[in-house]
Amino acid sequence: PSRLPGYATHQVGVAGQISQRKIIKLVNRSKLKNTWKFPGGLSEPGEDIGDTAIREVFEETGIKSEFRSLLSIRQQHRSPGAFGKSDMYIICRLNPNSFTIDFCHHECLRCEWMDLNALAKTENTTLITRRVARLLLYGYREGFDKIDFTMEELPAVYTGLFYKLYHKHLPDNYKTMTGID
Amino acid sequence: PSRLPGYATHQVGVAGQISQRKIIKLVNRSKLKNTWKFPGGLSEPGEDIGDTAIREVFEETGIKSEFRSLLSIRQQHRSPGAFGKSDMYIICRLNPNSFTIDFCHHECLRCEWMDLNALAKTENTTLITRRVARLLLYGYREGFDKIDFTMEELPAVYTGLFYKLYHKHLPDNYKTMTGID
Repeated sequence: PSRLPGYATHQVGVAGQISQRKIIKLVNRSKLKNTWKFPGGLSEPGEDIGDTAIREVFEETGIKSEFRSLLSIRQQHRSPGAFGKSDMYIICRLNPNSFTIDFCHHECLRCEWMDLNALAKTENTTLITRRVARLLLYGYREGFDKIDFTMEELPAVYTGLFYKLYHKHLPDNYKTMTGID
Repeated sequence: PSRLPGYATHQVGVAGQISQRKIIKLVNRSKLKNTWKFPGGLSEPGEDIGDTAIREVFEETGIKSEFRSLLSIRQQHRSPGAFGKSDMYIICRLNPNSFTIDFCHHECLRCEWMDLNALAKTENTTLITRRVARLLLYGYREGFDKIDFTMEELPAVYTGLFYKLYHKHLPDNYKTMTGID
């Protein structure tokens, strides 16, 4: 096979999940059945994952938030909404900075804060929303460090550029290899 | 802004990291300075992350391996190799099924098994390779569950399709909400 890269193969969608006891959600008109989902949408070109989540949450719900961590990644091929491309859907954990909902009536039927425990148990949602709600409930009770990929900005090999790297929290002594045999 | 999705915005590169005490690596001719890197390359259209890692590791090193987990994600914009697109680079943990190196002379100057501890300490590599080597050393010593996003295949809302979902290990009682108040 050719070793030349071809072209972009993925669209990247990002959803934001508010990491408080209550969580914000949406009804999506575009499905046959109304389901509760996390607010989210597609990345703009050149946009960081966390910025997409914050922007989409604000556009769809009116809630201001800040990025905390990356929780989950889904890779899906041949989905109808991806125009023949593959779909990478990334779920972020956000903290809210405001609480008054002012939602987008083009994209949502309803928008509410919902108790995380109730969301983890409801059947009226998608499999991925339920799963991530349960993951978040686990993190809320046992510590978010159990579920988070944290983010760090590092300099790229190309002068002046930076990238964002996400992985599990690494203790400082391992980051610097200080006192590690 | 338009709510219509535009087009694919990301290329997805995947690297494989062998989760044994020794780790396989490469010298890359394409950089000004030779550096040790993990084997890896771009996803083919429709290819799963883990399959890309396994294929690239085999093509570049001759080593057969199997997928274990997702370790880290890097998002980078405006990198010279991405043709104006953004770059999503995903590092997987693999287990080797073979050990004899037969490497690709187009893509590597040299290819060797290297002690993970030595790799974590060497300066002769990229920042991301060193960081992930340290993450892997931490997981090797403290348990890979500390660093892994595990994978599960779940049915999509579109009949007959499945997707792969990656997140931290979630205890079974949380997955099913059995005995959880």
